[in-house]
Amino acid sequence: MSDSPLSLSRRNMLAGAALAGVASQLVEPVNAQTPPASPLQSPAFYRYTVGDLKLTAIHEGYNQVPIENFVKNASLDDVRKLAEEQFFPKDAVRITFTTTVVETGGKLVLIDTGIGDLGPATTGRWMANFKAAGFDPAKVDRVVISHFHGDHINGLRLKDGTAQFPNAEVWVGQQEWDFWSDDGRMNNAPEAMKGAFRNVRRVFDPISKNLKFFKPGDEVAPGIIAQAAFGHSPGHMIFAVTSGSNSLMLVSDITNHPGLFVRRPDWAVMYDMDAEMARLSRRRVLDQLASDKMQVAFYHAPFPATGHIWRDGDGFRLQPIQWS
Amino acid sequence: MSDSPLSLSRRNMLAGAALAGVASQLVEPVNAQTPPASPLQSPAFYRYTVGDLKLTAIHEGYNQVPIENFVKNASLDDVRKLAEEQFFPKDAVRITFTTTVVETGGKLVLIDTGIGDLGPATTGRWMANFKAAGFDPAKVDRVVISHFHGDHINGLRLKDGTAQFPNAEVWVGQQEWDFWSDDGRMNNAPEAMKGAFRNVRRVFDPISKNLKFFKPGDEVAPGIIAQAAFGHSPGHMIFAVTSGSNSLMLVSDITNHPGLFVRRPDWAVMYDMDAEMARLSRRRVLDQLASDKMQVAFYHAPFPATGHIWRDGDGFRLQPIQWS
Repeated sequence: MSDSPLSLSRRNMLAGAALAGVASQLVEPVNAQTPPASPLQSPAFYRYTVGDLKLTAIHEGYNQVPIENFVKNASLDDVRKLAEEQFFPKDAVRITFTTTVVETGGKLVLIDTGIGDLGPATTGRWMANFKAAGFDPAKVDRVVISHFHGDHINGLRLKDGTAQFPNAEVWVGQQEWDFWSDDGRMNNAPEAMKGAFRNVRRVFDPISKNLKFFKPGDEVAPGIIAQAAFGHSPGHMIFAVTSGSNSLMLVSDITNHPGLFVRRPDWAVMYDMDAEMARLSRRRVLDQLASDKMQVAFYHAPFPATGHIWRDGDGFRLQPIQWS
Repeated sequence: MSDSPLSLSRRNMLAGAALAGVASQLVEPVNAQTPPASPLQSPAFYRYTVGDLKLTAIHEGYNQVPIENFVKNASLDDVRKLAEEQFFPKDAVRITFTTTVVETGGKLVLIDTGIGDLGPATTGRWMANFKAAGFDPAKVDRVVISHFHGDHINGLRLKDGTAQFPNAEVWVGQQEWDFWSDDGRMNNAPEAMKGAFRNVRRVFDPISKNLKFFKPGDEVAPGIIAQAAFGHSPGHMIFAVTSGSNSLMLVSDITNHPGLFVRRPDWAVMYDMDAEMARLSRRRVLDQLASDKMQVAFYHAPFPATGHIWRDGDGFRLQPIQWS
């Protein structure tokens, strides 16, 4: 398994651009700052612990995408069959977005940010849910970014340029940064991919001098160690959260919906920029989680997006935790 | 399949009394009226719709019970194995409690009530969650009771005798009433069972003249039809909720945890008062739900306790709905 971004084919880069460039796919921006006047729905945050660390899942909403072409290397019939078993909406996949907040060592740390005001109308709940959980965006100490697709970084900066976490250090993976910050690569990228490169500049240029860079094995916050899981993007990272004998793996985009890619880990989602590298990372991580019976938190699993992985035939199953 | 309560054996009655008499098993009563000062956890309500009807799942908390003897007709090893696959707590089952509120025909209707202030310390969240959802207990128009086990009726009346829904009509099943209101049966019941009979009197005696009685096939509220699913208790009812072409089945205690009894519908929980009758009801209802692909809401499934049933081998699986 190579970690070189050069292994990305032009075709895969184009595919990956679909989600990376979410900034250029506006449906109807919503103001993430305005909670609903009446409780139309429960504020979607969920607290749990890993040893002494406090974790909170913050829900952003969902994006409904056509099921056709969603999986690159399986027949539509096979994908539809698995989706039907799980009562997905007809011919569609609902990708949800859930950020994990970690309170560790006196610091308030976010792993990824939500979409801010740059997502479709079915998103934009993040800030209201974050505040409903009692958090203040001005008090976020650190934001750690798993990778640079728009749905993970757009919450750092609103469309008008406002930083949503003005006092936070922003930590980014070195490999991910090297790929996206390369102007030569941007200029040579296919037109459909350029929006994703530009969005990275929109988000990070105003703070580029203050960015902190991390590599696999680095402790990005007390008790949180970054691990490489390259493939979904060139420098895609996951995070092991440990406190005493308790641990949890924050798996970022190791899958885009566990109902499909935990069950069929060899399937490749259209957003995987290097499908084969992503497949190897997915199998390796899921295998470890099943063997260790380690709790897991996803960015794209149904809320509250945490549970355990159980081996099932040639694939796996996500057993969501029971609300308490 | 007989619907006569006389088919209940003394042994099964004793077993059923364990949950029925939850009033006599106080661990540490909590005041259900006091929401926590800071949002330690998200208020656990969840809104969804069935056609024009608005449903809200209201979470009460959970009761953790030993796994030993929990299933009456399976080996402890088999039960442990299935529990382990689903990452249950070690040697324990967490039974959750979730009431469904239905807004239908201008009426605010509850199906069952939660436990009020008579449950263990891990319960007692019901009223705070109900109010967080914007509801006022004084404005409940109707409470429909599925059966008379304490965890379904104790919310009607606090320990001090206060009615929690003072302006609500209370609807009870005729068969369930006939069983529990029979003084001769109470007097002849084993001592361990008498608490459950007494609790029924505690809850209903002050309003017995105003009770409304229903039978299978009756419309208990606009769009809500009662159906017999006897066995778990002598007059245990479930409810079909219909609006236009949309429908949902409120299955009450057709299972006490879907992870065990949806997966293994022939297993009998210790609380089933007539295990064989309950088994037949469970198979019939799950089979119908799987065939019709009808949405389902449980009283005892992990919050938000709603989803769909999929046939899986000789049993079934619950696919929870995806939060939105």
